[in-house]
Amino acid sequence: MARRTKVYEGKAKILYEGPEPGTYVQYFKDDTSAGDGAKKAQIEGKGVLNNRLSEYFMSGLNEIGVPTHFIKRINMREQLIRAVEIIPLEVVVRNVAAGSISKRLGIEEGTALPRPIVEFYYKNDDLHDPLVSEEHILAFGWATHQDLDDIVALALRVNDFLSGVMMGVGIKLVDFKIEIGRIYDGDFMRLVVADEISPDSCRLWDAKTGQKLDKDVFRRDLGNLSEAYTEVARRLGVMPSNATPITKPKLMN
Amino acid sequence: MARRTKVYEGKAKILYEGPEPGTYVQYFKDDTSAGDGAKKAQIEGKGVLNNRLSEYFMSGLNEIGVPTHFIKRINMREQLIRAVEIIPLEVVVRNVAAGSISKRLGIEEGTALPRPIVEFYYKNDDLHDPLVSEEHILAFGWATHQDLDDIVALALRVNDFLSGVMMGVGIKLVDFKIEIGRIYDGDFMRLVVADEISPDSCRLWDAKTGQKLDKDVFRRDLGNLSEAYTEVARRLGVMPSNATPITKPKLMN
Repeated sequence: MARRTKVYEGKAKILYEGPEPGTYVQYFKDDTSAGDGAKKAQIEGKGVLNNRLSEYFMSGLNEIGVPTHFIKRINMREQLIRAVEIIPLEVVVRNVAAGSISKRLGIEEGTALPRPIVEFYYKNDDLHDPLVSEEHILAFGWATHQDLDDIVALALRVNDFLSGVMMGVGIKLVDFKIEIGRIYDGDFMRLVVADEISPDSCRLWDAKTGQKLDKDVFRRDLGNLSEAYTEVARRLGVMPSNATPITKPKLMN
Repeated sequence: MARRTKVYEGKAKILYEGPEPGTYVQYFKDDTSAGDGAKKAQIEGKGVLNNRLSEYFMSGLNEIGVPTHFIKRINMREQLIRAVEIIPLEVVVRNVAAGSISKRLGIEEGTALPRPIVEFYYKNDDLHDPLVSEEHILAFGWATHQDLDDIVALALRVNDFLSGVMMGVGIKLVDFKIEIGRIYDGDFMRLVVADEISPDSCRLWDAKTGQKLDKDVFRRDLGNLSEAYTEVARRLGVMPSNATPITKPKLMN
């Protein structure tokens, strides 16, 4: 395979130019970080699991008519996605208080919220992704009012779907983060779910025991992250051993 | 005067039961604090100035039809107000970036914002009054959607009025904070501007020199706070020496 052009490298993924215009290849690294990169590690196999799990969730969303950037998985660590223009917001949906909302608003972790709460954080590592309100988003032009209505609607549909998927396998979806991208078709713009959906971007608690099956295992040193993610994959029938590439992996030069 | 019943004591003011049901007496202390009370001082005469200035702004608002809790000034340090049920939000309107928004969003102080931005902070000293979005407010029932629409409308009218008042005397209104209270008339509830409007709750910069004429003088050790407030009062023709009580002050026992 010819050397590819790197478009962007983040903390957990790399984007390369895709085989056709308007596409990228998204590569999932094993790198794990927390606290804006203050804490880092390599978790062997994490990238393989997240590639497979993100495929699982994104293709499920595509099937129920929630548009995503996902096209297909290419191999163990890579998937083909639509090239999108990322809106600089992390969109968080919370069903149960945990993490920053517990700290900020003094709500004990594990408290069910009165209804799902959609939060926006400005994507900026230097500023530590600060919480922003719709006022900030509108005033600084990061999204329009119509965009925000559409983003909230998308986020709540993702919440319904993911909550259902997780409930089916005995997992409580506490919260999750998505990013939203713009795709332009001529004059027409539409918003799609982008980035990834994986235990890196969700809080997942075992419905019975409350055991954490997500990145908090790493953030809070609660045990073996790889085992937690493998447990999620196992329950969903998405075993890494099943993660046979759809297309034959190409040999690197 | 008979000993009065204290309803509430805050960092800068005391509320007493008023002479009639549905009224309070609001007493302005000289106490000044910053950083959630981390920094404290007594600024002689500050309470007198703020009582007079808050009277000036609140009665101006009443006159243009923006309802406030203000009824009348009683004496040098006290004013009669409507008893309201305070909504637990600090409502901030910003015209120019300064203070927390500069730090949070990385905007240089003094940068004009693209439009006035209305922010909400959850009134809770223990949590350091965290920024919240409409989602939090609605989910936790601190205000309804209709309340929020009304609050934003009130806040923007206050901004228009105060900006005008300040512009008239060569002062730039950078930002300000108000609180909103509910008044019940039988089944009917209405929202009014409450708390105070003073250089304690505004950022005021001299339009030409940029000199700070507000509480930042204290927060940032920039000089004499009393002189700054007196300058604001002087420009507005609200000299402390003019602050003759409307009703004769009653002698304390």
